[in-house]
Amino acid sequence: MTTLDDLPIRDDLRGLKPYGAPQLDVPVRLNTNENSYPVPEPVVEAIGKALAAELRDLNRYPDRDAVALRADLAGYLGHGLTVEQVWAANGSNEIQQQLLQAFGGPGRTALGFTPAYSMHPLLALGTGTGWIPAARGVDFGLTADEAVAQVRAHRPDVVFLCSPNNPTGTALDPAVVAAVLAEAPGMVIVDEAYAEFARPGTVSALAVLPGHPRLVVTRTMSKAFGFAGGRLGYLAADPAVVAAVQLVRLPYHLSALTQAAARAALAHRDALLGTVTAIMQQRDRIVAELRARGHRVADSDANFVLFEVGGEQSTAWRTLLDAGVLVRDVGLPGWLRVTAGTPAETDAFLTAMEKLS
Amino acid sequence: MTTLDDLPIRDDLRGLKPYGAPQLDVPVRLNTNENSYPVPEPVVEAIGKALAAELRDLNRYPDRDAVALRADLAGYLGHGLTVEQVWAANGSNEIQQQLLQAFGGPGRTALGFTPAYSMHPLLALGTGTGWIPAARGVDFGLTADEAVAQVRAHRPDVVFLCSPNNPTGTALDPAVVAAVLAEAPGMVIVDEAYAEFARPGTVSALAVLPGHPRLVVTRTMSKAFGFAGGRLGYLAADPAVVAAVQLVRLPYHLSALTQAAARAALAHRDALLGTVTAIMQQRDRIVAELRARGHRVADSDANFVLFEVGGEQSTAWRTLLDAGVLVRDVGLPGWLRVTAGTPAETDAFLTAMEKLS
Repeated sequence: MTTLDDLPIRDDLRGLKPYGAPQLDVPVRLNTNENSYPVPEPVVEAIGKALAAELRDLNRYPDRDAVALRADLAGYLGHGLTVEQVWAANGSNEIQQQLLQAFGGPGRTALGFTPAYSMHPLLALGTGTGWIPAARGVDFGLTADEAVAQVRAHRPDVVFLCSPNNPTGTALDPAVVAAVLAEAPGMVIVDEAYAEFARPGTVSALAVLPGHPRLVVTRTMSKAFGFAGGRLGYLAADPAVVAAVQLVRLPYHLSALTQAAARAALAHRDALLGTVTAIMQQRDRIVAELRARGHRVADSDANFVLFEVGGEQSTAWRTLLDAGVLVRDVGLPGWLRVTAGTPAETDAFLTAMEKLS
Repeated sequence: MTTLDDLPIRDDLRGLKPYGAPQLDVPVRLNTNENSYPVPEPVVEAIGKALAAELRDLNRYPDRDAVALRADLAGYLGHGLTVEQVWAANGSNEIQQQLLQAFGGPGRTALGFTPAYSMHPLLALGTGTGWIPAARGVDFGLTADEAVAQVRAHRPDVVFLCSPNNPTGTALDPAVVAAVLAEAPGMVIVDEAYAEFARPGTVSALAVLPGHPRLVVTRTMSKAFGFAGGRLGYLAADPAVVAAVQLVRLPYHLSALTQAAARAALAHRDALLGTVTAIMQQRDRIVAELRARGHRVADSDANFVLFEVGGEQSTAWRTLLDAGVLVRDVGLPGWLRVTAGTPAETDAFLTAMEKLS
């Protein structure tokens, strides 16, 4: 039998395993930061109707530029953004891959402050971009000075910031974004996948876009919108950045179904985003309860919480799994990440946590 | 205003324009090899029902490995193929991009026999793979000797074959595939996007897969299936090749909607593929009629025809457009490509062609 090692794959891929959390059939799945609430019935009906209108013409290619969808996304984001400043793809992974193809790639580098979203270095690998893992500070924080010093030392072509940061959960101080923008010689990507869950007063990097053509803010409908199965990521940036990714995007990358479903979901954003407050309450409840029990917990502006287990995290992960609760081992010694979902899921998680002591 | 040139895009992208045929609103669109027949009503209903069943759970990520869809695709392809030998993505462009990420990339090369599918060199560019344009022979043909000599001279990491070839329309002699497989030091990708339209007796490279772990056959549902708007491409190869692309695929790249819609379409393949014979008849009619009028025409095993216009092709393209018929200028001096669609579309095209003389 032929094995992967027998094939002429790239040397830098040898020995790797496919990225992804275990897909296990467990009663309480709190490992991939999905929105635990199913799509409400009226929105199901609206998306169904929007999809039905596309089906007869599926023999035709979709709008290659997804103009109507991008206009809707711009309207959702606000900040005076227009269709020319927004681009969409199959998840923010594809958005960031396109950005690295345009601004990174062979002979160029991308820098991220780890621990951050673990796809960033894998996207660099997949696009031939050199990856520079920079460090976060005390308690996974990141100050402007710490960030700037590392950008200055490495002069990367692309800097990834992640706010709220995954897996730690904490949003960046806007001063960090501003300082990195001032120092970075190339593009600065702020991954705001979890922006809708941020604590009151958190400032989005969208506010900084005017006058900063090298800034890109990426977003997703997978989290707050509860649209993970629909796969829709997007970016906001200067129109020139949108023109740049169009040089590397695959033609017709977004299906007619994706475009129609996402537009219907955006039209019903009030219903879909209605779960955000409830999720934030569970997030805050998890943070408070774990701290009350003596765990160290990172501040969270996201729909998940990073907490110290008080021992080996892979053992704790298994204990929670045996109790029917699937959380995420992000490979951070002593820490685990749990998604904030429904009150019942929080109950189950907090009960399972008692097995750790 | 910031322009693309002001941004730090890759030097090899500077001056390029986004790939894609003009999307013009013309009565008769025969420029992108779509299937001109809309999706039949019973299939519309079946796809609608399949999509509806997914909507409530769109808050959850889709099956990352698309196992059920891949099993269905394997069943459709036959040749004893199993789910482990099939992989799917958002169009065969994404399939081929993943193959170049795994087997090409920085420091490696891909070779194609031009004119062929114009995305192949662009996918190489987007993945940092060096592109080697090899030549076709007389009348856009390609013999085993011609192919082998160029593979031997360049020793590329990836060879693209295209059968039926786009834009010429002619299927490859199986001897060419066999000879290239024997000579090539790396992977051999046979792009069979138009396989279902091939003339009787044409042999698919699927038949050669056993014992050839470096052979990959790519297919699409965009053409014969009339599913261009659904975006579904796939490959068949050794299970080790499927394992290789899983190292570079974006996690959850295929939405739950794409997976469900494609499965419903495959379940109704008899209805969808029922248009293939009618399209082949129009294709043969176009070939015969143009030859009768004195045009040189390439043999076609696809749903399109490449023909010599007798003059400058961009002028002829404009003349046909002014007559309400949009065809494709693939940049081949003196030649144009027209999609075979409905009998009425053929009528309109053949009538418009009278304006050329």
